[in-house]
Amino acid sequence: MARIVMKFGGTSVADLDRIRNVARHVQRETAAGNEVAVVVSAMAGETNRLVALCREAATIHDAREYDAVVSSGENVTSGLLAIVLQAMGIDARSWQGWQIPMRTDDAHGAARVEAIGTDVLSDRLSQGQVAVIAGFQGLSSLNRITTLGRGGSDTTAVAVAAALHADRCDIYTDVDGVYTTDPRIVRTARRLPRVSHEEMLEMASLGAKVLHVRAVELAMVHDVPVMVCSSFADPARPPVGTLITAEIDAMEQETVTSIAYARDEAQVTLRDVPDAPGVAYAVFGPLAEASIVVDMIVQNISEDGSATDITFTVPQSDFERAMAVVEAQRGTLGFGKLLGDTDVVKVSVIGIGMRSHAGVAATAFKALAERAINIRAITTSEIKISVLIDAAYTELAVRTLHAVYGLDKTP
Amino acid sequence: MARIVMKFGGTSVADLDRIRNVARHVQRETAAGNEVAVVVSAMAGETNRLVALCREAATIHDAREYDAVVSSGENVTSGLLAIVLQAMGIDARSWQGWQIPMRTDDAHGAARVEAIGTDVLSDRLSQGQVAVIAGFQGLSSLNRITTLGRGGSDTTAVAVAAALHADRCDIYTDVDGVYTTDPRIVRTARRLPRVSHEEMLEMASLGAKVLHVRAVELAMVHDVPVMVCSSFADPARPPVGTLITAEIDAMEQETVTSIAYARDEAQVTLRDVPDAPGVAYAVFGPLAEASIVVDMIVQNISEDGSATDITFTVPQSDFERAMAVVEAQRGTLGFGKLLGDTDVVKVSVIGIGMRSHAGVAATAFKALAERAINIRAITTSEIKISVLIDAAYTELAVRTLHAVYGLDKTP
Repeated sequence: MARIVMKFGGTSVADLDRIRNVARHVQRETAAGNEVAVVVSAMAGETNRLVALCREAATIHDAREYDAVVSSGENVTSGLLAIVLQAMGIDARSWQGWQIPMRTDDAHGAARVEAIGTDVLSDRLSQGQVAVIAGFQGLSSLNRITTLGRGGSDTTAVAVAAALHADRCDIYTDVDGVYTTDPRIVRTARRLPRVSHEEMLEMASLGAKVLHVRAVELAMVHDVPVMVCSSFADPARPPVGTLITAEIDAMEQETVTSIAYARDEAQVTLRDVPDAPGVAYAVFGPLAEASIVVDMIVQNISEDGSATDITFTVPQSDFERAMAVVEAQRGTLGFGKLLGDTDVVKVSVIGIGMRSHAGVAATAFKALAERAINIRAITTSEIKISVLIDAAYTELAVRTLHAVYGLDKTP
Repeated sequence: MARIVMKFGGTSVADLDRIRNVARHVQRETAAGNEVAVVVSAMAGETNRLVALCREAATIHDAREYDAVVSSGENVTSGLLAIVLQAMGIDARSWQGWQIPMRTDDAHGAARVEAIGTDVLSDRLSQGQVAVIAGFQGLSSLNRITTLGRGGSDTTAVAVAAALHADRCDIYTDVDGVYTTDPRIVRTARRLPRVSHEEMLEMASLGAKVLHVRAVELAMVHDVPVMVCSSFADPARPPVGTLITAEIDAMEQETVTSIAYARDEAQVTLRDVPDAPGVAYAVFGPLAEASIVVDMIVQNISEDGSATDITFTVPQSDFERAMAVVEAQRGTLGFGKLLGDTDVVKVSVIGIGMRSHAGVAATAFKALAERAINIRAITTSEIKISVLIDAAYTELAVRTLHAVYGLDKTP
């Protein structure tokens, strides 16, 4: 017997047929004698409808009222799933955020979970009652409804799993796990049986959108084993997907686990910037003040010690603003040219095993060079190498790297 | 300065244009220096959509989960109206039932209000903040969401008005008040400036659907002055409608205030029933057990003391069942014929003044006789005379009675 948390997103509860399908997944687990808490999102499209109503009500709106409105979609789904489970003879009840209570801070629209009332919930679970929890929502210290931001139901699920000391947290989605790369680009992409929290964090922030970044962080901090699997698989069979766990024994760890890419980057380059102390701050200070998140930053040592080039990337949606912010500093900075390009892509090689393996980066650079793919910028972390290249080479670069690290082959 | 409660139903908050219109009504009252609590229903059609989802989930469903689902429509409207009011520069916040809290009993789906937490609400009102309250919903002793049944937002409004000792409770709807009769039948029907709680109660139960029966009862018990007015009237002007108050001084009271009719009655007649003790119970006991509500009951004294006729009415939706229940008692009762008719209508003459006026009933019977309208059955109360007639005569009877009591003329 295990205690498990199961989370189902919007497409998995899109209508009553899909909700009945979710109930069959739950039934499989209760029939196996497991204690089950289910976290549900709003029916597909519902949150967008509610957000649109708030925007139509006023362009600038009280975040507390916005949260009260948009959280209502989850109330509907949790009640409906409880009804369907009961009709199948399974003891179940719905829980809204304030009933648990799911205590959060007061950051409406992007609240962080602070404490979860588990006494009653835990009692009910051990009595065999399924807890159907409305995801995405919480309760502030002022007794107002908060929401955890987009993808917040993932966070609810992991937070509940941590608080209830669950043995597993299964995230049901419309894909059956995490792949070595995007299967739409590389046909031989394989589903990874296991991925470490750290790797998943790199993948999540790089655009492999199976699991919300904050949920992964929370899972890492509380050491919650999370499995990503598909709600479209046969509900009668145990779920097969990708298990995201703490670091795996190095012996079984592949050096590189996956190749990710992000198309929504834009490149900004300042040529002939005076190579003097305080220059970096003069560039990036104003960008931070404008709430523009800078991702890659590259600055080379200048040859003669007088002038250098600075390149960085920002989200494409912030590109125009970033260019304007930098241009406004021209007088202060005294740079030569300001160049920008949105036709770029960031490709990343990820693997916890590269910590202990030399030459992983060199392999990537060599492979890309052989394909004549020009690297505009490079950044690295302990478990990731990212290169910025021309967008036209995206597929070629992803396929080349996927092959060169042997990800095509079953290990 | 007054403290007022304003209630807006589904058609008055059907979309954001209508919600903005509601906000302008609120603005008029706050600009006049009044303290305002607004009670809102779900957007038109929304509660029906949620009810349909529950029914699709399971034909028999947990009333607690049903309440959790169907109450969510009011959460959306209360949040949206708060946003719109704020955008107009009016301090406002939404209140869900559990936040107030609006304590009810545990009768899910038809809960009764037991206590309302008014301390914080009252403080906020006196600070000039508009309270936007989600109608229809409450909180049980077990911390579950309850609903007050259809038309429950009227009840919420009156209960809030009573608890907050409001000076007025204005019910905004799609008609501008209570009329002497249905204006679709009688063109000269007049809006009544004032109606007593007792009269309104008779009208409400008779099908004049401007105000929910339970809300009127509550207003009567707590002596809350309720005004029915139209949300479609110019928001810049003070509302004009019908004021429903405690009994009015007899001097200014008209004998008869209105003529109501109910088309959804069906007639059941038992001929040649033995005139013996216990017969009435033998007829109506089984009907009560089958949860069939009997309205009019007529039994005449038999001529020779051996056999009599019993006539009663039931809602048309229960007609077939009622006939079957009575038929099943044929052996026990030993009646002659069982007759039924759905082609009937109940027409009622209502007026608190008839208490002190003799001959009101005689006037009705004479007028109907002159038009050759046959009366099938008669029941009376202190302030009401109802007759059951052939449905074909509905309009003629209503017009005749409206005229004979002088309701056509401006008083």
